[in-house]
Amino acid sequence: MTGGNGDSTGSAGYGCPLPRASFSAIRLGHGSGGKLTNQLIRDLFLPHLSGPTLSRLEDAAEVEFARERLAITTDSYVVSPIFFPGGDIGSLAVHGTINDLAMKGARPLYLTASFILEEGLSMDDLERVVKSLGSSAEECAIEVVACDTKVVNKGAADKMFINTAGIGVIEIEDPPASDRAREGDVIIVSGEIGLHGMAIMCAREGLELEAEIESDSAPLYELAAAIFDTGLEIHCLRDLTRGGLASALIELAESSKVGVELDEERIPVAERVKAACEILGLDPLYVACEGRLVAFVPENDAEEVLIAMQGNGNGGRAAIIGKVTAEHPGKVVLRSRIGGRRHVDRLSGDQLPRIC
Amino acid sequence: MTGGNGDSTGSAGYGCPLPRASFSAIRLGHGSGGKLTNQLIRDLFLPHLSGPTLSRLEDAAEVEFARERLAITTDSYVVSPIFFPGGDIGSLAVHGTINDLAMKGARPLYLTASFILEEGLSMDDLERVVKSLGSSAEECAIEVVACDTKVVNKGAADKMFINTAGIGVIEIEDPPASDRAREGDVIIVSGEIGLHGMAIMCAREGLELEAEIESDSAPLYELAAAIFDTGLEIHCLRDLTRGGLASALIELAESSKVGVELDEERIPVAERVKAACEILGLDPLYVACEGRLVAFVPENDAEEVLIAMQGNGNGGRAAIIGKVTAEHPGKVVLRSRIGGRRHVDRLSGDQLPRIC
Repeated sequence: MTGGNGDSTGSAGYGCPLPRASFSAIRLGHGSGGKLTNQLIRDLFLPHLSGPTLSRLEDAAEVEFARERLAITTDSYVVSPIFFPGGDIGSLAVHGTINDLAMKGARPLYLTASFILEEGLSMDDLERVVKSLGSSAEECAIEVVACDTKVVNKGAADKMFINTAGIGVIEIEDPPASDRAREGDVIIVSGEIGLHGMAIMCAREGLELEAEIESDSAPLYELAAAIFDTGLEIHCLRDLTRGGLASALIELAESSKVGVELDEERIPVAERVKAACEILGLDPLYVACEGRLVAFVPENDAEEVLIAMQGNGNGGRAAIIGKVTAEHPGKVVLRSRIGGRRHVDRLSGDQLPRIC
Repeated sequence: MTGGNGDSTGSAGYGCPLPRASFSAIRLGHGSGGKLTNQLIRDLFLPHLSGPTLSRLEDAAEVEFARERLAITTDSYVVSPIFFPGGDIGSLAVHGTINDLAMKGARPLYLTASFILEEGLSMDDLERVVKSLGSSAEECAIEVVACDTKVVNKGAADKMFINTAGIGVIEIEDPPASDRAREGDVIIVSGEIGLHGMAIMCAREGLELEAEIESDSAPLYELAAAIFDTGLEIHCLRDLTRGGLASALIELAESSKVGVELDEERIPVAERVKAACEILGLDPLYVACEGRLVAFVPENDAEEVLIAMQGNGNGGRAAIIGKVTAEHPGKVVLRSRIGGRRHVDRLSGDQLPRIC
């Protein structure tokens, strides 16, 4: 709590090299999904909000109720701009919630939606967003059961923020969990990475490319169902959001205490995303997706899961991108096109604020 | 959607005299809990988020799951300042959620908490709020199961906003509902009104009174349990938040299609609240509470419910303040100290922004 903004003082242990004490105020990087976010959650939030469920740090909490298992999740959406190619803050809020539930093998049931509106927001824009949220919820067969609206004075918020909470029922026996990755598991990504983040960045920066980048924002409930319908054991399933593919894999490697090895040339990245990333100096590995997931499955089942994913509209370009090793536990290593190997670290800076 | 900012053009029917079309942009009054809020919800939100549950517009939604009844609620908290006499945005968020559940006769089970933080927010302030939220949740025996943090750039939010969703299980047979008020019902308020709103306004405006006003923010689960434990039929139960006692009673009168008659001199208002309201030109009837409720009960049961309420720490100053009539359905009428009668209308302006 005292002074200093150093980036690497002391150590708070595993996956948490920056002690909270190194910052006296919130920085944009605390929202990046990288190192600072991780540190903030572990050092400031968890100690005060301790409980058996929250400390598992899954996309959705699993609780037992009336002999059924409920999945519960929450997210706030602060994306800027609120409209972007391929979606808007309303559809994004629904997709994000649906996906967090789907990663736990939960069928979505109920959604809450709460709006923080800035004085002066155009009523047309608000209606467009609410309509989009409503129709996305309907498509995903999740019922909006509770809603709230607050208004703050001009300048006290940026247009609008949405918070959602989602409740689903877990219908599979043995849901994936972040600590279930095992040596030998094969890692499958459901499609091209980085589209959402680059769509937002291009819209925000006014970057005009030859081919417009559209967000991949999509509900992944059906893709997840296709995966579970194989009846095979799925060790980990995670949607790629803030911090992109890299951050998701690092979290899974840390939770499972295993190593992850990626083949750079097998990771699907669209040419236009590569081009935009180069212009903006970004690494696609860290760029957010909102319609992609990674699955960790035993090697013998990988082909079958891959085919199941490719048979779904949102998994058409699914690809095997790496494997789980016993070496370097908690770390992700990338084998580059030219054969080099590099350690993929958590995002340390303020790379991509307000992407979701 | 087209032009104009007129305050009384046309009519959208019952309880909704201002058509959405009269505003092209969000105003602070849309968050006041009064006329504009009501209009925004009915004209813009409900048409796009239609569903059997949401359209009941209760404090908490009731859904059936695994042959049990769940209560689900959500609220965003944008109170300014974030620390105030008697509480802070963290404790307020817990109490507000607990109270929405309690009003449906639900036992609180699970809480989600999502934080929107402004770049530059002091880490000390954040920790103080998270600690307060955590300890309030613990006191109320509700488990924080899911959490989220977003950071926005400086100037894109005002310090911090919190969103919560709450899930509880409804354990009473016949929960109160806003449409269950009946002619002859007696109206009981659980204590002095206006403390929360005036605590906030004094803190915000730097108003120094002889006696400091502390917020009444408190969890009402035990008070509600004491009421239900009488085994008597409770027609309506509502906590008084945005828009105060007046707005809550108007909503109940409208939903139940009954009239409400209040005795001004029986409504408990602390002298220091009266004094502050006079200075700021406010009517205590519309000032938010965060630890008060009103109960509508059949006349013959009123005394017993009143005694049960007075036996609880949060109901010590409970008082009978009025009754339900068949006359003037949908309207609230106040009998003043000197015998006059006046119609209590919905709040029409931007009276008290960011009170919760």
